[in-house]
Amino acid sequence: MNKEYVTVIKIGGNIIDNEEALLLFLKSFAVTPGKKILIHGGGKLATKLAETLQVPQQMIDGRRITNAETLKIVTMVYAGYINKNIVAQLQALKVNAIGLCGADGNLVLAHQRTGAAHDYGFVGDIDRINSNLLQQLLAADNTIVIAPITHNGKGQLLNTNADTMAQAIAQTLGHLYNVSLVYSFEKAGVLRNAEDDATIIPKINPATYEQLKKEGAIFAGMIPKLDNAFKALANGVSKVIIGNAQHLSQLIEGTSGTSIVHE
Amino acid sequence: MNKEYVTVIKIGGNIIDNEEALLLFLKSFAVTPGKKILIHGGGKLATKLAETLQVPQQMIDGRRITNAETLKIVTMVYAGYINKNIVAQLQALKVNAIGLCGADGNLVLAHQRTGAAHDYGFVGDIDRINSNLLQQLLAADNTIVIAPITHNGKGQLLNTNADTMAQAIAQTLGHLYNVSLVYSFEKAGVLRNAEDDATIIPKINPATYEQLKKEGAIFAGMIPKLDNAFKALANGVSKVIIGNAQHLSQLIEGTSGTSIVHE
Repeated sequence: MNKEYVTVIKIGGNIIDNEEALLLFLKSFAVTPGKKILIHGGGKLATKLAETLQVPQQMIDGRRITNAETLKIVTMVYAGYINKNIVAQLQALKVNAIGLCGADGNLVLAHQRTGAAHDYGFVGDIDRINSNLLQQLLAADNTIVIAPITHNGKGQLLNTNADTMAQAIAQTLGHLYNVSLVYSFEKAGVLRNAEDDATIIPKINPATYEQLKKEGAIFAGMIPKLDNAFKALANGVSKVIIGNAQHLSQLIEGTSGTSIVHE
Repeated sequence: MNKEYVTVIKIGGNIIDNEEALLLFLKSFAVTPGKKILIHGGGKLATKLAETLQVPQQMIDGRRITNAETLKIVTMVYAGYINKNIVAQLQALKVNAIGLCGADGNLVLAHQRTGAAHDYGFVGDIDRINSNLLQQLLAADNTIVIAPITHNGKGQLLNTNADTMAQAIAQTLGHLYNVSLVYSFEKAGVLRNAEDDATIIPKINPATYEQLKKEGAIFAGMIPKLDNAFKALANGVSKVIIGNAQHLSQLIEGTSGTSIVHE
């Protein structure tokens, strides 16, 4: 039997910070055909709220150190404000969106990160995705909007990286569907020069990836995203594309962005 | 065919403000048999956050005037912090809880209140409940946890009274299930003296309700709850009970609290 198509799209923080850019993205997301899942980060809104509330924020390698107060802030901002506003916008665009975090329906079970070089606090590494719930909701023609908050099954919410969540969800669904994973953000794709969209690398396979890393030719912040992309490809995801959120249809068609491929 | 039982439980703000009381309540909620829906208010957490953020709050007849900044706060607190923490606690208690607000899956469509004596801002009055979504989720053995944030179908989130939401959901489901509606909070039930649990009125029917109102014997804050209760009863809900959240099983059995009855 041919597998149905599912598109898993991660939308990056910088788009979420910009109301106009977000609405444009959601309009193209709304007309993306087929079953789809949107995973959003939190952008600067959480950082801004933390500033106003005078909760100092510390980032290590782009990961937010999450103490109890910060967990409260990211839960409010990601699972509350951003998630519900995206859902309401999509509903207005006639997309039957339903917003969840990883605790809902035990969607993403995680454990608190331990043994790392730094104490990340309430940061969760993923153990298991509840693919049954996703299947049920997709079968009933819901579009699922996911905030990167998980839980440990013992009552503790955890802050989890949205890129990693997108990868884990895509690869779990890869066993059931023909899954494309799109990492969309404010840049054209994987760039040699992070400030210049013209330096986009249109295609990366494992061999060229090693070479690019050796040359130091890839912007450091892109490495975890690419690692996630190759992990997804190696685990049943059909294709991974990284590119500009404002060119979503072209990314999905493969006429824009960077394609991550097996060879 | 006999209708299946569904219990719709509203949990009041004062319980939510108290971590220990909330956990005790959730433990008894977890062992409540059958299909169930939990609707929570927001309590003082939203007011506290507004104070910290220096967003002045104004209440009229217990309803919160909701400007854009306040809407952001209640969305974060109700649909984010409180909803997801309750879901995570219930998951730890082996209840397959899924948390939604009214925008999710178009669960509660509302319109912004207009023509009232006061401008309530982004406050929503309910137009329609998506009973299909509730049916689907209940059929798949999910326990639904609902935050009192709705939407207008045009991208606008709205703040809606949780008591009213419980009533609207209960009466919509009344056509499909045998529905009990429980309003649970920190008091023993409907009291003649709001400060004295011993003054509980065990049963109220429409005639005694009119009499009690005439005598001024009911605490003013209770009137909208009772109006909601009678409206629910008149529209297909099997029974309505008002009482102490810490006696949930007795409320459901009918051995505690105030029963609202037809006659």
